[in-house]
Amino acid sequence: MRLAMIGLGRMGWGMASRLLRTGHEVVAYNRSPEKARQLADQEGALYAESLAEVVSRLKAPRVVWLMLPSGQVVDAHVLEFLDLLAAGDILIDGGNSQFTDAPRRHDAAKARGVRYLDVGVSGGVWGLQEGFCLMIGGPRDAYEQVEPALKSLAPANGYLFCGQSGAGHFVKMVHNAIEYALMQAYAEGFSLLEHSPYSDSLEFAEVCRMWNHGSVIRSWLLELAGRAFAEDPRLDALKPWVDDSGEGRWAVHQAVEAAVPAPVITLALMERFRSRDENSFADRLLAALRNQFGGHAIKKNA
Amino acid sequence: MRLAMIGLGRMGWGMASRLLRTGHEVVAYNRSPEKARQLADQEGALYAESLAEVVSRLKAPRVVWLMLPSGQVVDAHVLEFLDLLAAGDILIDGGNSQFTDAPRRHDAAKARGVRYLDVGVSGGVWGLQEGFCLMIGGPRDAYEQVEPALKSLAPANGYLFCGQSGAGHFVKMVHNAIEYALMQAYAEGFSLLEHSPYSDSLEFAEVCRMWNHGSVIRSWLLELAGRAFAEDPRLDALKPWVDDSGEGRWAVHQAVEAAVPAPVITLALMERFRSRDENSFADRLLAALRNQFGGHAIKKNA
Amino acid sequence: MRLAMIGLGRMGWGMASRLLRTGHEVVAYNRSPEKARQLADQEGALYAESLAEVVSRLKAPRVVWLMLPSGQVVDAHVLEFLDLLAAGDILIDGGNSQFTDAPRRHDAAKARGVRYLDVGVSGGVWGLQEGFCLMIGGPRDAYEQVEPALKSLAPANGYLFCGQSGAGHFVKMVHNAIEYALMQAYAEGFSLLEHSPYSDSLEFAEVCRMWNHGSVIRSWLLELAGRAFAEDPRLDALKPWVDDSGEGRWAVHQAVEAAVPAPVITLALMERFRSRDENSFADRLLAALRNQFGGHAIKKNA
Amino acid sequence: MRLAMIGLGRMGWGMASRLLRTGHEVVAYNRSPEKARQLADQEGALYAESLAEVVSRLKAPRVVWLMLPSGQVVDAHVLEFLDLLAAGDILIDGGNSQFTDAPRRHDAAKARGVRYLDVGVSGGVWGLQEGFCLMIGGPRDAYEQVEPALKSLAPANGYLFCGQSGAGHFVKMVHNAIEYALMQAYAEGFSLLEHSPYSDSLEFAEVCRMWNHGSVIRSWLLELAGRAFAEDPRLDALKPWVDDSGEGRWAVHQAVEAAVPAPVITLALMERFRSRDENSFADRLLAALRNQFGGHAIKKNA
Repeated sequence: MRLAMIGLGRMGWGMASRLLRTGHEVVAYNRSPEKARQLADQEGALYAESLAEVVSRLKAPRVVWLMLPSGQVVDAHVLEFLDLLAAGDILIDGGNSQFTDAPRRHDAAKARGVRYLDVGVSGGVWGLQEGFCLMIGGPRDAYEQVEPALKSLAPANGYLFCGQSGAGHFVKMVHNAIEYALMQAYAEGFSLLEHSPYSDSLEFAEVCRMWNHGSVIRSWLLELAGRAFAEDPRLDALKPWVDDSGEGRWAVHQAVEAAVPAPVITLALMERFRSRDENSFADRLLAALRNQFGGHAIKKNA
Repeated sequence: MRLAMIGLGRMGWGMASRLLRTGHEVVAYNRSPEKARQLADQEGALYAESLAEVVSRLKAPRVVWLMLPSGQVVDAHVLEFLDLLAAGDILIDGGNSQFTDAPRRHDAAKARGVRYLDVGVSGGVWGLQEGFCLMIGGPRDAYEQVEPALKSLAPANGYLFCGQSGAGHFVKMVHNAIEYALMQAYAEGFSLLEHSPYSDSLEFAEVCRMWNHGSVIRSWLLELAGRAFAEDPRLDALKPWVDDSGEGRWAVHQAVEAAVPAPVITLALMERFRSRDENSFADRLLAALRNQFGGHAIKKNA
Repeated sequence: MRLAMIGLGRMGWGMASRLLRTGHEVVAYNRSPEKARQLADQEGALYAESLAEVVSRLKAPRVVWLMLPSGQVVDAHVLEFLDLLAAGDILIDGGNSQFTDAPRRHDAAKARGVRYLDVGVSGGVWGLQEGFCLMIGGPRDAYEQVEPALKSLAPANGYLFCGQSGAGHFVKMVHNAIEYALMQAYAEGFSLLEHSPYSDSLEFAEVCRMWNHGSVIRSWLLELAGRAFAEDPRLDALKPWVDDSGEGRWAVHQAVEAAVPAPVITLALMERFRSRDENSFADRLLAALRNQFGGHAIKKNA
Repeated sequence: MRLAMIGLGRMGWGMASRLLRTGHEVVAYNRSPEKARQLADQEGALYAESLAEVVSRLKAPRVVWLMLPSGQVVDAHVLEFLDLLAAGDILIDGGNSQFTDAPRRHDAAKARGVRYLDVGVSGGVWGLQEGFCLMIGGPRDAYEQVEPALKSLAPANGYLFCGQSGAGHFVKMVHNAIEYALMQAYAEGFSLLEHSPYSDSLEFAEVCRMWNHGSVIRSWLLELAGRAFAEDPRLDALKPWVDDSGEGRWAVHQAVEAAVPAPVITLALMERFRSRDENSFADRLLAALRNQFGGHAIKKNA
């Protein structure tokens, strides 16, 4: 089928390429148009230099897939496309949007007769080769209409209609929250190995390989850990600085709103905050208190 | 090769069977001898009714593999076998022993010329079919001598010599600690789905299937979750009661001893404690305090 | 000075009473007017049966203090009072409002020339006797104008101007977050005593008394714990069910928004969620997973 | 009464001084004898230059109080004193010993007819002035015999007989565990204030003062925080480096052994570990994993 891909960052580029390689036609658009032209050259995309041109190169019912940074950029594009699209068309947000944004956008689209899908996409830089895992929310008929593209984007069995508007991004949010906690689990485990009496005799890439064959904790993340250790056995080149994107935060908000205990997910997020704080105020207060009551030594800045 | 398997519980039975099916000879021993006879009948094991008979059915250098509950049972068997074995023989503890026990037992064995290996075994009830993941500590020459058996027990790439005495059980302990935290990560994630506005439209077995194809969080544990949900979609038949074995506890001890932060591993363990406490004293004190300062309602027992 | 107290729940009643007993005049208003009449009878309040009557019984610059449940009830009263009050008057929200609500209400008031203060109030049912701790945000000149009332409400040294609009409720939110974590700290500690080999020889009320004289952990909460244990030595009459009000949740949101690690505050909140879940879905999934990979026993519902 | 104080560190010195100032006689001993002589000069202690001399200066039933670093130093002194003391004498360990050490030492003492008390002491550098909080375990008759000294050391109501051997150090261990979590609670709260939009308008010493008058979270630790902020308003002079002594660790061990959830106590301990790790291996692995699956930026060492 033919559809438009708006936004050719890491994810959008990979998805457009995978669609093209599996027989679909993609109208590519990117704010800086070179990327779109590049995709045309390399992978055979059609391309457009304005949103209006995007729409003109599609046939009704048109399908437009947004792969944009979450927040106002998505809202702005939704508004623009709702002016350009017609009743019966389909607008998809495949970015990492907050699930609470979907029903609002869905309703705005519906008022114009446009069907709005929220699609959570997992797979990262490996998606082009291995397929993207897709979580879909919104009107079921729209989902069914774009299913040929979903089928091509995903590996076999790798996509699911999750429910009404917001369900796709909700399930993706939970996916990312689990991801944070899984990563923290492995990080703590390897830290125990690193700081153990057996540290010197352990090649961590070998440990990953071994655990990935037959153990209870085998996983794709552990394979990636193995690749990381193969490149840099003790990760000496890296700084202990860990970013977070919005979805872990939204998941904690959701846990709190729904009164669902999610301690390891929350701690995994907060450890990332901690990693970026080189002069913890909390820790300075702890040091100050120990000194106040116990006369314990404190370390002073030079 | 020929070796003895002492203890035919779930794990010992599976390992002996896998060895037998891959061309090894196993002298099977179990405290209650029917199991050993059963293994002889079903899988072609040799069997013995006493430890002395076990030893008599092996040829030097003898290899004896213990698969026993951790603690005093292992110590007792180590002592008995050290009296029966001769210099050059190999004694293996494949149970879930505390890693700190290994060097002590290794030294006692060494004093008799016996080589002692500590082997962590992962794989559970699936090991017979898929292979057991093996983590080995102790004298490297002993490891090399039993490698043919290890190779048959494990799937390809699924075993590793981890270092000197204790290394095998140490790495296994960390494996289990990671396992606890991974499980808790998935448990919290599915709890967020269960208590979400989209809960009704989500088949959790389908979510597992989808996430296992292309997503970042794909893993074997997630496959098992999918099986569990396929059997009982909302786990209605189960009680929220979660046991723990020793290794999670030892891992927290080790984290504390080594001053290594392991928050999610620790919380995963403590959540299991919490699951078994139906009348939390801590929570009663919280309720009492809220009542004391705020006059907040408390629930009283009838 | 003369001021109006709107809302005569536990807190509003206590505050109005304390003002009356320290020489102020209070125009009391409550949705169900009997309470206001009762306060007039018992403590000498003036009372009013409508908001308009409230305003008519004050003299410019009028001072109206709201002690209402947070959320829409406050918004509705703010709107009504802004119609009734005049430039130069002062409107105070002393309830447990979200700090982000204050600037919005402040600006709406300012558009009418009314000065809006957000005041966090701590002290609970003890405030009448011991004084209420007050945290004030908003225009400093309004704060200075109502300081005589603040001084009477608070114990000596027990009030503070915290900054511009929202600061009072922000500091109160943090206060409550700390309170959650302090309570959890004591709860865990006494749980360790309860489940210890020395449990039988320990009278917890005595432990509280002793710790409150000279130890590092002496505090008012520990005094309250002592009172609770004096009434019910092992809290046998209570259910382990712990409610939470909004402020702990807002504090976790704020921690996440500001990327500030707040692990013990967050866990203290989540433990309360946990206390109210008698059939944890997460724990059932843990049990199911253990069974899937290890064949471990699970408890089934009858 | 007359007793010997062995070990004149911060705690021993303060306790001996308080005893002397309240009319008791103290035979002071310290490894480096100048301290003992200094105590004699300043506070009127008797002093001894050997343990034998200590014993010779006491009258039966002799009372010897050890204030020594926990571990082997205590064991060594217990052994020496058991050789010097006679049946009916009393030996007290007032240091921060592990509670599991007490019954062993108690039994060794009992075999000689010596009564052994384990006493947990809280109060830090403030104890001399405000009194030390004392938690006592061991034979009750020995406790009663030394009660005059305990009464002088403690503030009114500040000592408690907690039960048989080990109870004193157990209750002290729990006290310290609570202390860790209380400190962490305040540290997180002030960190939320520090990183808030209202930070600039808040004097933290003033916040402490205000909260300590009438709020639910008033405590002695909060008074100490106020002192720390008064000296250094934003703690700029301090490094975020927080030590821990043994008792927090033992408390986590105990929680794990007794299967008692103690999440905030445990996290408070682990945050201290975290504060001392400037190049977290766990965080480097998190960064590496994000890069592996998402192509996310990582920070490399120069």
